[in-house]
Amino acid sequence: MSVTDQYLANNVAYAADFTGPLPLPPSKHVAVVACMDARLDVYRILGLNDGEAHVIRNAGGVVTDDEIRSLAISQRLLGTTEIILIHHTDCGMLTFTDDDFKRDIQTETGQKPEWAAEAFGDLDEDVRQSITRIKNSPFITKTSSLRGFVFDVATGRLNEVSA
Amino acid sequence: MSVTDQYLANNVAYAADFTGPLPLPPSKHVAVVACMDARLDVYRILGLNDGEAHVIRNAGGVVTDDEIRSLAISQRLLGTTEIILIHHTDCGMLTFTDDDFKRDIQTETGQKPEWAAEAFGDLDEDVRQSITRIKNSPFITKTSSLRGFVFDVATGRLNEVSA
Repeated sequence: MSVTDQYLANNVAYAADFTGPLPLPPSKHVAVVACMDARLDVYRILGLNDGEAHVIRNAGGVVTDDEIRSLAISQRLLGTTEIILIHHTDCGMLTFTDDDFKRDIQTETGQKPEWAAEAFGDLDEDVRQSITRIKNSPFITKTSSLRGFVFDVATGRLNEVSA
Repeated sequence: MSVTDQYLANNVAYAADFTGPLPLPPSKHVAVVACMDARLDVYRILGLNDGEAHVIRNAGGVVTDDEIRSLAISQRLLGTTEIILIHHTDCGMLTFTDDDFKRDIQTETGQKPEWAAEAFGDLDEDVRQSITRIKNSPFITKTSSLRGFVFDVATGRLNEVSA
């Protein structure tokens, strides 16, 4: 039995108590961009209820074209205006370099990715540069609040990164 | 008081009961790619516990270069092997076309995004093409299981998309 099958069994229990459907647009007009890290249960960390906020996640919680795409759709079609960025301590992105990562892939496959791996060496600095990428995008035009945080995986606390 | 500030107050309560830290690598070796939709509380839908699975999310749950980047990091550096894709009914991506979305942005800002918006017209078809994009990537080489689902926002159930 795969883990996927175990999770599907969990879903049967989830659906048994489910009350839906809720409306499509996020009721709190918030979009969160967070790292994919397994220890970041974003709904619990922020106390999100179903239907309140978009949650966008990737390796590092970095802002690439795909996060700009998602945020543009979130703001323009579904009315979000506040953006919350969440990076975290003990992040995998601090443990390697783009060059080494892409070299390993090339060694295995004969081909190097054309994209950046987006590894970083300083958490606060990367939160700030993610904020800057959003501010500098010509396609994110509806923002009323844009704040970045580092989640501490030892304490559960969000610590704001100053500009 | 912004919604962000309300969520930060929730985080104080979350941290009060927090027990950590957990290890960095996902203990169940799973990566989930899901839509950013506010009604998809992925941890609850699948019964994920903290630390078990990477969760990658964007508008539509589609697979672009950034999801390939995240999955490559997830598999190569952090040992995941199973991939679960989750799209859902009543998705915003069914409600527009790339051409209209990009035209609206150009009308407002004078500039058209160079990226695809990734709108789609058929849920099952888009799950299948996301699976195909992962299978066709030369950089995702550690996959033991790759399955796609549509989450029903009215019932809470995951329904598998056949290949």
